[in-house]
Amino acid sequence: MRYRIGFIGAGKVAWHLAPALAKSGQEIIQVISRSALSAQKLGDRLSCQHSNNITDLIKDAEILFLTVPDHSLIEIINDISDYRGLVIHTSGTFSPLRFACQKYKHGGLYPLQTFTIGRTIDMSTVPVFVEGSEPAVARMIQGIAEGFTSKVYEMSFEERRWMHLAAVWANNFSNFMLTEAYRILKLRGQDPVWLEPLIRETFDKALVITPGRAQTGPAIRNDDITIRKHLDMLTDQPDMQELYRMITHSIRESETKTNIPGT
Amino acid sequence: MRYRIGFIGAGKVAWHLAPALAKSGQEIIQVISRSALSAQKLGDRLSCQHSNNITDLIKDAEILFLTVPDHSLIEIINDISDYRGLVIHTSGTFSPLRFACQKYKHGGLYPLQTFTIGRTIDMSTVPVFVEGSEPAVARMIQGIAEGFTSKVYEMSFEERRWMHLAAVWANNFSNFMLTEAYRILKLRGQDPVWLEPLIRETFDKALVITPGRAQTGPAIRNDDITIRKHLDMLTDQPDMQELYRMITHSIRESETKTNIPGT
Repeated sequence: MRYRIGFIGAGKVAWHLAPALAKSGQEIIQVISRSALSAQKLGDRLSCQHSNNITDLIKDAEILFLTVPDHSLIEIINDISDYRGLVIHTSGTFSPLRFACQKYKHGGLYPLQTFTIGRTIDMSTVPVFVEGSEPAVARMIQGIAEGFTSKVYEMSFEERRWMHLAAVWANNFSNFMLTEAYRILKLRGQDPVWLEPLIRETFDKALVITPGRAQTGPAIRNDDITIRKHLDMLTDQPDMQELYRMITHSIRESETKTNIPGT
Repeated sequence: MRYRIGFIGAGKVAWHLAPALAKSGQEIIQVISRSALSAQKLGDRLSCQHSNNITDLIKDAEILFLTVPDHSLIEIINDISDYRGLVIHTSGTFSPLRFACQKYKHGGLYPLQTFTIGRTIDMSTVPVFVEGSEPAVARMIQGIAEGFTSKVYEMSFEERRWMHLAAVWANNFSNFMLTEAYRILKLRGQDPVWLEPLIRETFDKALVITPGRAQTGPAIRNDDITIRKHLDMLTDQPDMQELYRMITHSIRESETKTNIPGT
């Protein structure tokens, strides 16, 4: 089905989701963002109307996507209380109970991916988790998502928030470990590019044999000599020293857990 | 130059390094390991003599590689005190001062990569850091390494240990973040395969725009609502809750540091 769709929010999620919807045959009619520049950039990209004022909202859009941070969602779902189409948020952690006082139908479409403006993402590979205020709404959102990816799954808020928590570990936290590695080399005047083959192999290996089986290093082999040397090297960075200590402890503990995948 | 080379140690490093040396024209004449099975497996792979007894050491090998854990190195460098060739260790953290009492020439060849038996590694892409007990030895080891990779750099022990510390963050710690993501999904009966596009994009993006610029998520955008929700979800796993809290703190702190690459 082809729908007339508006977007509130013109950030990273909208930047990737709206063009994917347009490409799948949906009609994007409007982009609204607090930032006039962001609204204009995405509006121009989609050749549609754009505004930085929510009172400009085109009320007869059949669907309205809210691609804004969670704290803004709470405000916006009240601002649009006289809207009568279907409202879809894209948050990993937002509870549908927040919509309880609203008269419009609503649902969620959560893409499990990290988005950055300027990066090209193959949206057909992105898993998408949907829910709806009633079964027919969930089916409708599912149909929309299936326009751009084959990986669409209905999932309740209760389960979706675990997916989101896992994504924080898989993306935000793993990326920060790379940031710290780059920082250490930069501080020593060494070239972070040297880390690239290691980083490539780290993730290729984890995806092939599972991260549980791919774990190497001083923590997993109980190499106390090396661990002590590393902790000494971090003496003047007490935060990072404590973080090193705690991750090392957790890697060791994980060996004794029964639920580690791949072991 | 072609040398006759022995290996003490038949683990992950030897499994990848010895065949790379053989392919580059070096002659591997012997593999010794405490494990007779490991010695045999690698010996068979290289079509050379193998033993599980250090007294079988072929003393006229021109070079002896020690590819054993650091704690075993200390013992072995004494066991081979009547050897008169060149001894090369492959440790990231071992100090050349440990060789002070020995009469043989010695050096280090540290490949910056994570090795797992059964994985194919393109050794020509691996950066290798070398040092020697005297300049001529360093040059000799450099020549040997250049047989299989173009990325060979002379580096002192003092600097090499920072490289090794960075590698622990880039590989061991980032991999553990993936392990935790997989574990969360498994515990909820969800399919860890859903994380694969996210993991691919995480590392592709970090390598292209640097991890400093690639950081996303609740910590970097100061999304206290989501952070609090996640901490609540981890209440019955206090270790992981504390680790989540500390990494989140470090990501926020990193914003205020001046040495973060890519910002």
